[in-house]
Amino acid sequence: MSQYHAPMHDIDFLTTAVFPLDPHLQGCGSALDAGLARSVVLEAEKFAQGLLDPLNRIGDQQGCRLHDGTVSTPAGWQQAYLAFCEGGWNGLRQPEQYGGQALSCVLATLTEEIWHASNPSFALCSMLTSGAIETLLHSATPALKDLLLPRLISGEWTGTMNLTEPAAGSDLAAVRTRAMPSDDGSYAISGQKIFITYGDHELASNIIHLVLARTPDAPAGARGLSLFAVPKFLIQDDGSPGERNDVHCSALEHKLGIHASPTAVMQFGAGPGATGYLVGELNEGLKNMFVMMNEARHAVGNQGLAIAERAFQHAVWYARERVQGKIVGEEGAQLPILRHPDVRRLLLGMKSRIESMRALGVYLSMQKDLARAAASPEARSRAQARVDLLIPVMKGWFTEAAQRITYDAVQVFGGMGYIEESGAAQYYRDARILTIYEGTTAIQANDLLGRKTVRDGGAQAQLLLDEISQQAEAMLAGAAGAREFGRSLQQGCAHLRATIVWLLACHEADPRATHAGAVSYLELWGLVTGAWMQGLRLRAALDGAAEGAALQAIQASARFYAENLLVQASALRQSICAGGCAIDAFPDDYWAR
Amino acid sequence: MSQYHAPMHDIDFLTTAVFPLDPHLQGCGSALDAGLARSVVLEAEKFAQGLLDPLNRIGDQQGCRLHDGTVSTPAGWQQAYLAFCEGGWNGLRQPEQYGGQALSCVLATLTEEIWHASNPSFALCSMLTSGAIETLLHSATPALKDLLLPRLISGEWTGTMNLTEPAAGSDLAAVRTRAMPSDDGSYAISGQKIFITYGDHELASNIIHLVLARTPDAPAGARGLSLFAVPKFLIQDDGSPGERNDVHCSALEHKLGIHASPTAVMQFGAGPGATGYLVGELNEGLKNMFVMMNEARHAVGNQGLAIAERAFQHAVWYARERVQGKIVGEEGAQLPILRHPDVRRLLLGMKSRIESMRALGVYLSMQKDLARAAASPEARSRAQARVDLLIPVMKGWFTEAAQRITYDAVQVFGGMGYIEESGAAQYYRDARILTIYEGTTAIQANDLLGRKTVRDGGAQAQLLLDEISQQAEAMLAGAAGAREFGRSLQQGCAHLRATIVWLLACHEADPRATHAGAVSYLELWGLVTGAWMQGLRLRAALDGAAEGAALQAIQASARFYAENLLVQASALRQSICAGGCAIDAFPDDYWAR
Repeated sequence: MSQYHAPMHDIDFLTTAVFPLDPHLQGCGSALDAGLARSVVLEAEKFAQGLLDPLNRIGDQQGCRLHDGTVSTPAGWQQAYLAFCEGGWNGLRQPEQYGGQALSCVLATLTEEIWHASNPSFALCSMLTSGAIETLLHSATPALKDLLLPRLISGEWTGTMNLTEPAAGSDLAAVRTRAMPSDDGSYAISGQKIFITYGDHELASNIIHLVLARTPDAPAGARGLSLFAVPKFLIQDDGSPGERNDVHCSALEHKLGIHASPTAVMQFGAGPGATGYLVGELNEGLKNMFVMMNEARHAVGNQGLAIAERAFQHAVWYARERVQGKIVGEEGAQLPILRHPDVRRLLLGMKSRIESMRALGVYLSMQKDLARAAASPEARSRAQARVDLLIPVMKGWFTEAAQRITYDAVQVFGGMGYIEESGAAQYYRDARILTIYEGTTAIQANDLLGRKTVRDGGAQAQLLLDEISQQAEAMLAGAAGAREFGRSLQQGCAHLRATIVWLLACHEADPRATHAGAVSYLELWGLVTGAWMQGLRLRAALDGAAEGAALQAIQASARFYAENLLVQASALRQSICAGGCAIDAFPDDYWAR
Repeated sequence: MSQYHAPMHDIDFLTTAVFPLDPHLQGCGSALDAGLARSVVLEAEKFAQGLLDPLNRIGDQQGCRLHDGTVSTPAGWQQAYLAFCEGGWNGLRQPEQYGGQALSCVLATLTEEIWHASNPSFALCSMLTSGAIETLLHSATPALKDLLLPRLISGEWTGTMNLTEPAAGSDLAAVRTRAMPSDDGSYAISGQKIFITYGDHELASNIIHLVLARTPDAPAGARGLSLFAVPKFLIQDDGSPGERNDVHCSALEHKLGIHASPTAVMQFGAGPGATGYLVGELNEGLKNMFVMMNEARHAVGNQGLAIAERAFQHAVWYARERVQGKIVGEEGAQLPILRHPDVRRLLLGMKSRIESMRALGVYLSMQKDLARAAASPEARSRAQARVDLLIPVMKGWFTEAAQRITYDAVQVFGGMGYIEESGAAQYYRDARILTIYEGTTAIQANDLLGRKTVRDGGAQAQLLLDEISQQAEAMLAGAAGAREFGRSLQQGCAHLRATIVWLLACHEADPRATHAGAVSYLELWGLVTGAWMQGLRLRAALDGAAEGAALQAIQASARFYAENLLVQASALRQSICAGGCAIDAFPDDYWAR
């Protein structure tokens, strides 16, 4: 097996030359500086190498078990979790007021990539806790915050997200879990939730479930959902866990991957009802849950980048190790398969996508920082609009790219890739959930198309596209080494622009026609914003940030991206603007014929 | 779970309207007629529904076990195998002289799709036996044929293909297994072979291993390999199995999928050496093995179609069953997710590819029949040349398409797709081996590019492309409903033609540049030949072979193919003709940075 390394070379290039970190941190009024941030990332790498990466395969093999009502995690999990919390990693980006370290979102994104790359099943635990923390910060009463946040931020307790029910998946309006008001102001929750990540385990002394449920007089549909915090153990007056609440894990799912992340069926109120506390206003549960969901979508996109990076590293390691046969155009035998043109095509395809994703992830995290901490309200709302536009791209495009990258990594391994002991298959299996949970790619695409493009008449989309086009023009007019790329980027922008015009013109009259192309539209955004990032990298490199082989690597990667990926923009535009006529023309009786 | 159904509607359409079976069979001098062929297919469906499909999930869960030197297969496997042989399915296409039924390759391809769709792990056993039979038919002495073929064809014994060694995968020239001549004319074989499908099991009373090995004075490299038949049990004078030969399964691999197909590490000659019999001439082993390999590549392509079909059926079933939420542009709630535009996009993408693959598979099988049995030597060699050109397309493109289709099937299931009990994940896992075994996609692509395109100066490629272009022109000049498709097909042909011109011009001077685009070249051939098939279907339908909803289904599928798949031809051409400059420009020290 290869050993995991944090992608320091790329991180350094991004945080110094492409998106300089120090001015950004100053602009957000952060006490952090780039030097300290770098040492935090290096510490995270050390932690991942020492504890998380070696446990990844063990976790896959052992999985989690439900026995006598108790969920056990794989060997080593408990120690790793304690060490993780002791290291302060759980509260890296959380407010100091509740014991967090209030470091920037950029830094959190970089360290979280390291957790997800080295052990995605492990990292899901703190990812879900983070989402719960954000939601409570946003919506809970001061008393509830004081009660829950310090322990969630330290990691003494963990958090979950209880949305899905057997008949309510993508359609949360169908949620049936009930919340009956009790005399003491709490609620008695009853119902079944499924697919609950880290829904039960023994890693922490308590678990705070955030649960979507319906009060007796609530309106039907999505507008009648409220959000409740339901602890696994009832909380005593001194804040410590007391008696068991009426919530239990009734089964664990047997999944294709992320075996070490317990995916639970949760039963609320098998007895008198689980005691829960209202979070936010009645009937505003879905709105409040969206805070968590947006955090989670950002995080899952990052997870896509992370698993892709780990699979790529493993494939590069094998391509260097494995010697096989005579290679076209090469002298001599006994060369590593890294010299095969097709192996290089696979690897450079992975690498150039990964670079684009990481750069876009850093950009988006900076926008998140600015949305929270920029000096002026205008700057904050500008940044928030950018975040809103790009979150579905990060979730949708990163996770779809992760499928291709983990697939290609298996392919580099050849026959060994299909054998579990090589490790390549695990990345492929683990990655498969990413385009499904926290909203499928189609749900991200519908969000990008409906709420993020059509609703404001394409204003935010055009604004970003103008920025990218300006960059393309600057490259066309600039250094010789950037012109060809500038031309490709300009073409990519033109295809996306024409697509948006078409979507805006058609959407009202025929929303099914535009929705038929929603996923392709998301892919087109991914391609173009990925190219934007490759362009920013290339410009920075040509402006003096890289030389020699380092410059050559950046140039090759950008060129590969333009020649092999961005060229697909035209076909996507054609598919989208064909309006999916064929899709509705197909007669439903004929699917099975 | 959905129940498997043979795609009779499509088979009937293909064998009556697109590639009429009766005239074909007559042209090959076959005693079979289309009516009988259809009843054989229906029998195969019945067998698959009754025995194989229900065992597919059980096989996945139980897998195979090696215990005390004995390999056990899952519960029900033994009975199913006996019933399969009793039904005469094992020798369907084999010569009557040795007990086969000598039915056409078309019919064998259609029934084999049914085995692979309902239970790919099970079907691999007879697939490998078939390959061994073909090789023996082609190369063995009459005495060896008489000894082995009747029992292999009846299924009393099974066959395997022993090529790969730990240091000799794609590069068979590196094979090190030794064959020492014995006084009685046999050879003593010693060495280790890995990844041996059905290398050991108890289903049959003997196993005939076809083994690539090297005699003491053989030249180095691929020209020094000979082929040997090595029985698991030595064969007694009366032809029955006697003592155990010196060949043993030393381990079974733990694989991502096809769990019920035992993938063995085989040890030859742990003691005095395993007794083997030379098949064909000394040092012509690789040439003779290629007979088997071409059969196997055709079969694996068919397996790709088959698993794709099964995954598609399962996804359609779920999309009809699963009710979820409000759907864009539809009245009312509680509609099945089949009405979601994106679910329809996924399903029609699967369906149109599957139709193209099945049609191309039938076409190629007819060419195989003609190569063997056409009246004139010219017709036979014309057909063989077509087979040679298209085998890598069938293996490479069908199996890559199967990845996408099984991926999309999981996506249709949403969260349930990631849970093993839904069954969707198994197709995804099982399919993953297809682009690797019997030669990876890159190996197929290099074959298509080097041996099948460049070697004859593009003659065979141009010949086929001319045929497809003529069809495109006929459609442009024909019925109104076909014109738009004809235009798309013409554009696809133009892109492929220009690509071939570029490849031929560049290959000698810079073979690494052309090989960098080999996989894209294969994909382009797949896209264009797939479109050719959609065009043939559409023309046949418009000519009166379908009406009403049936016609509408064929039109929608062809249109979807043109608007969503064939449009990618331009990008593929651009990528290929960019010549992979970026790939070799990337400095090797920078992969890990």
